[in-house]
Amino acid sequence: MLTKRNNTRKIKIGRLEIGGGSPIAVQSMTKTETSDIDATVAQIHELEKAGCQIVRCAVPDKESALALKEIKRQINIPLVADIHFNHEYAILAAEAGVDKLRINPGNIGKTEKIKAVVAAAKNRGIPIRVGVNSGSLEKEIKKKYGGHVTAEGLVESALKNVKILEKLGFNDIVISIKATSVPMTIAAYAALAKKTDYPLHVGITEAGIPKIGVIRSATGIGAILAAGIGDTIRVSLTGDPIEEVQTGFEILKTLDLVVHGVTIISCPTCGRADIDIAKIAEEIERRTRDIKQPLKIAIMGCEVNGPGEAADADVGMAAGKGVGLIFREGQVVRKVPEAEMVEALMGEIESLVIR
Amino acid sequence: MLTKRNNTRKIKIGRLEIGGGSPIAVQSMTKTETSDIDATVAQIHELEKAGCQIVRCAVPDKESALALKEIKRQINIPLVADIHFNHEYAILAAEAGVDKLRINPGNIGKTEKIKAVVAAAKNRGIPIRVGVNSGSLEKEIKKKYGGHVTAEGLVESALKNVKILEKLGFNDIVISIKATSVPMTIAAYAALAKKTDYPLHVGITEAGIPKIGVIRSATGIGAILAAGIGDTIRVSLTGDPIEEVQTGFEILKTLDLVVHGVTIISCPTCGRADIDIAKIAEEIERRTRDIKQPLKIAIMGCEVNGPGEAADADVGMAAGKGVGLIFREGQVVRKVPEAEMVEALMGEIESLVIR
Repeated sequence: MLTKRNNTRKIKIGRLEIGGGSPIAVQSMTKTETSDIDATVAQIHELEKAGCQIVRCAVPDKESALALKEIKRQINIPLVADIHFNHEYAILAAEAGVDKLRINPGNIGKTEKIKAVVAAAKNRGIPIRVGVNSGSLEKEIKKKYGGHVTAEGLVESALKNVKILEKLGFNDIVISIKATSVPMTIAAYAALAKKTDYPLHVGITEAGIPKIGVIRSATGIGAILAAGIGDTIRVSLTGDPIEEVQTGFEILKTLDLVVHGVTIISCPTCGRADIDIAKIAEEIERRTRDIKQPLKIAIMGCEVNGPGEAADADVGMAAGKGVGLIFREGQVVRKVPEAEMVEALMGEIESLVIR
Repeated sequence: MLTKRNNTRKIKIGRLEIGGGSPIAVQSMTKTETSDIDATVAQIHELEKAGCQIVRCAVPDKESALALKEIKRQINIPLVADIHFNHEYAILAAEAGVDKLRINPGNIGKTEKIKAVVAAAKNRGIPIRVGVNSGSLEKEIKKKYGGHVTAEGLVESALKNVKILEKLGFNDIVISIKATSVPMTIAAYAALAKKTDYPLHVGITEAGIPKIGVIRSATGIGAILAAGIGDTIRVSLTGDPIEEVQTGFEILKTLDLVVHGVTIISCPTCGRADIDIAKIAEEIERRTRDIKQPLKIAIMGCEVNGPGEAADADVGMAAGKGVGLIFREGQVVRKVPEAEMVEALMGEIESLVIR
């Protein structure tokens, strides 16, 4: 249904492939001090449980760079080191066995330093993500575009940084462009996708606290993915990283870009609804959260759209005055009073789950 | 920055205009029994406070239709009656003074009945929204497209219903197409926008409980709006309608389609952050929620993107080891320890707010 996905080349991050038609990978970033190995590993294990496919750690000091080796040993998903300014940390991270580096060649400094980082990445066979942020765009480029951060400026910065790597014979590249302005981010990705076939990492930077950040992220990442662009996504929230991963998967599920667990369709309820749909939907959501198998469940309050949606789902209910028709794979299987609706739905759901 | 907005004709819903370049209006629907006038009016007053611009009530029975007159008298925003199957309720609603009808001519029945509804709408000068839902798509159209609901089928149904009205000389029309499949909804709106210039009402139907529904809605509505399509939006959640309105405004704010209140940019925090950014951002969000004036506030945890973002905002903070630089309109104005950050930020924010 969606626009055809943008064609990118395939790259490997550890055992995981992104780009070139691979499934879109969901990633996150630890919020612990990377040098605190136990706390960082514990958070990554939580992220792995939530389905996180790539994890990134900030490397602001030597201790953090040195901690990566032990972190890597204790986790199962590819590890990315996020480095700014200091090329030595990048080299240490590569030596520690990380699966990818995220740097901006532009803020690493002299060519000699960049050469050393590229040599380390080449040596280890790991890719580099060039990540341009609106908050740290080069002054010269800002000046060129009227003193402001613009979509064109961000694309120019990304391609300039890519060119630095390419000139050193390095092509194992992922690119990201993040602006706090979401329309600017959307415009920048659209322009960038036309100019490169490197895989693109998509996110909305500094999206904010979860309440607001999930909306900003879904709006922006959703619009970019719906245009066929994006090979890996990260939702960035001022909050629990687990929620970043859950939100990422919900966005992908919404766009049919991943098949993963239960999707609950439930009506907003209105003057036509006679029973407490919200309560039932919340309880079904809670009790089906751990199901990995793709299942569509419809919980509907009235006769207008209810029967159609319920019949279209794997398991559904269309409620009327105090009673509900329970559907399974398109057929009405039972009629139950309100008090029995949750158990009746769970019974049908359980009967379809392969354990 | 966004794609140019799709050109639609302008229509009036009470005093509010939608389409033809008007600001995109945020609407919601009451979840009370419409016949319970006090409860319905109380909920609409809450919605008005949240900024809701159009409100819709379900009319499943005669009592609800008759209640609309008194509801209309007690509220300030345009009132829409949502009617299925029964043309008499539509006529009663028009006579009660509602500002718009939402019907599907296809499920009203015989031409005589549709004629009577159209005459009532014409007489009162009120528009009709033709609202097609995947859950109630006509069987004949489903059959035509292989027995399934498809984007093409939904568009065909919408245009067929529009044609019924046009043949009766009625052109005061808004159209919506809602499918539980979000990619199908996106595809249907893209196809529909090419075939009509009537204003479009955009929403993701049965998006679910708030936790999931805000993500599904933002992803879908965001993608449609980012493509330049949509004249009014409704977020549909199995939960509090106030949250529907708040989510709607956040989507519009994210895409720079409305200027409304405070936008907080805050970093996700990582191993580089030294202070509790989430706690500060949550508190600033809570304390600035009532500011209507557009203000951008950046709350950043480190030196990488912090100074750039903080300087770019109206009020910002870039934190370092236990201290933060406070920015106002691009300039550093103070340096404060962690314990004083919230008050320092609030002080600068208050100084910019015009009361």
